[in-house]
Amino acid sequence: MMNQLLNTLHIKHPIFQAPMAGVTTPQLVAAVSEAGGLGSIGAGYLSAKETMVFIQEVKKLTNRSFGVNLFVPENHTVTKKEMEHAHQLLAYCKEDVNLEKIPMPTLDLPDDFDEQLDVVVEAGVRVCSFTFGIPNEAQISKLKNNDVFLIGTATSVKEAQMAEQAGMDTVVVQGSEAGGHRGTFLEEDSYIGLMSLIPQVVDHISIPVIGAGGIMDGRGVMATLCLGAQAAQLGTAFLTTTESGAHPLHKRAILKAAETDTQITRVFSGKPARGIRNRFMKEMEKHEHNLPAYPYQNSLTKAIRSAAATEQNKEYMSLWSGQSPRLSKAITVHELMTQIVQQYHSMKNGN
Amino acid sequence: MMNQLLNTLHIKHPIFQAPMAGVTTPQLVAAVSEAGGLGSIGAGYLSAKETMVFIQEVKKLTNRSFGVNLFVPENHTVTKKEMEHAHQLLAYCKEDVNLEKIPMPTLDLPDDFDEQLDVVVEAGVRVCSFTFGIPNEAQISKLKNNDVFLIGTATSVKEAQMAEQAGMDTVVVQGSEAGGHRGTFLEEDSYIGLMSLIPQVVDHISIPVIGAGGIMDGRGVMATLCLGAQAAQLGTAFLTTTESGAHPLHKRAILKAAETDTQITRVFSGKPARGIRNRFMKEMEKHEHNLPAYPYQNSLTKAIRSAAATEQNKEYMSLWSGQSPRLSKAITVHELMTQIVQQYHSMKNGN
Repeated sequence: MMNQLLNTLHIKHPIFQAPMAGVTTPQLVAAVSEAGGLGSIGAGYLSAKETMVFIQEVKKLTNRSFGVNLFVPENHTVTKKEMEHAHQLLAYCKEDVNLEKIPMPTLDLPDDFDEQLDVVVEAGVRVCSFTFGIPNEAQISKLKNNDVFLIGTATSVKEAQMAEQAGMDTVVVQGSEAGGHRGTFLEEDSYIGLMSLIPQVVDHISIPVIGAGGIMDGRGVMATLCLGAQAAQLGTAFLTTTESGAHPLHKRAILKAAETDTQITRVFSGKPARGIRNRFMKEMEKHEHNLPAYPYQNSLTKAIRSAAATEQNKEYMSLWSGQSPRLSKAITVHELMTQIVQQYHSMKNGN
Repeated sequence: MMNQLLNTLHIKHPIFQAPMAGVTTPQLVAAVSEAGGLGSIGAGYLSAKETMVFIQEVKKLTNRSFGVNLFVPENHTVTKKEMEHAHQLLAYCKEDVNLEKIPMPTLDLPDDFDEQLDVVVEAGVRVCSFTFGIPNEAQISKLKNNDVFLIGTATSVKEAQMAEQAGMDTVVVQGSEAGGHRGTFLEEDSYIGLMSLIPQVVDHISIPVIGAGGIMDGRGVMATLCLGAQAAQLGTAFLTTTESGAHPLHKRAILKAAETDTQITRVFSGKPARGIRNRFMKEMEKHEHNLPAYPYQNSLTKAIRSAAATEQNKEYMSLWSGQSPRLSKAITVHELMTQIVQQYHSMKNGN
């Protein structure tokens, strides 16, 4: 199998680390790239300044290529009244996470997207990926003029076609199995399973496809390539590694979970995301369709999630996970990559 | 790759035809088995007598093995009041399908399950599969004593483990991508994508696993085997073949559909099933959780579905389809099998 994508990116194995905003550390990114995959910084929640600091930290740890993932800003608005209503809905969990009051966030959330793009260019980052949409023409031109390799995110054929048309060099297709936020930016999400999504996308676009969602080991990587993708992107598999910055309770929840323990919820951030069911998800479920959009709900629940982490209370933390938690392992990135590559190569060679 | 399942069943290719009740014809079943796969009669809606007739028809067309699929009866009850309410909800669509009135079905729906098992034994059918549950011990013993190979259906690791413990010889694991009825029989359905479901099941049971859901071509078959299954079961791919008995409008709807056009609905039968969105699904969606269970809702909507088929009105027909309709083809079973096998072998040989 010729692999145009790996050649272009100068990486050895068709294994991308999903840029999990909030839990990805410089150590994780560097370890994946050092092991021959492509590490990625999840910069979605970072300011431009923090993004630069993170990039510099990774550069201290590896000379290899790595990516930076950014959230494309959307134009959702919220009224003061809606925020107050959503704020009231959260009041009930104060005591459980030991907060005196739940702070009311500002309505003017900073948008550092253009500044983050500048940082990517200035820092000489070779790969930049996007979630929740596609940057505008000027933004794309700027990156392309600086030889940045661009990766879009799609959950349907139409979204993948739009990514290609906009000039993305490749596209991650995210199956319904995937943990964390859904990358959907068009219409309603149809939650297409990866077995269906990859071949249908591959047949409709010309740029290489990277499969994501539920892939945890050599079997998943090999299956993804059989379906027509040129690489596999793994999130949950890296989340439980030693190098991951996920809260120990988050890691433990995944390591103990069954495949039926996750569901898709909007209650943490205002955007659909897959995580392990806990009390907050169950209690807030009835309000799910009356919450402010991302990033407003995300900013509203931030203090609760932080306090829950401090209090060691996983019932109010966002326990993002894909649908394959039974395949998760508490090992180092090096061990994980070695196991995946060995299994994948042995299958490739027909053993 | 050693394939214990194919050896036991004396079939050449790891390709099972999903036993699609209502659209499977003797010609379809026989053509799949003749082409080296395993055809299956979808006898879920048939009486014992009709099941016997169907089996005899298939036997006239092929000497090869084929399966019979039965629906395991559940103990749902319904009150006369609930039926009347559900009946009233349907009144609105009379004119659209040209029915003077919508008949009220009897509450005592026949249950021919034990008689169907007798037919399977009498007719010397070698393979029997089950959907919606697991037969009881006596029923399983009777089949095993007559050398019938038993196939369970599962949508989670726990269901697969129960199938193994009950004595099933193999289990079909149905991913969230699958068209038609969900085979779930425990708790709530978590809609696990096939990429996640196969390896997690394979790691937890010892009997062979057959993957189902969204598989349409050699890429899907090969991916399914990579994930650890010993065969792939295809439904939608066979539904659009010449030999399928699906309504021409149903076939055309699949051939024209995008991957985002399906959703899971309970409105046709009282049980969740994936099909192409149409007017009846949209209009009845708001009542979805207040409808009688299967088979009662199924019997209530039967006249509407039949009339819609006669009237060539696809808006009131159940247009079951998996999530890969873009990969569907209007060809014969022989052509389809040849294409799949060629693609699968060429991948296996690394071309």
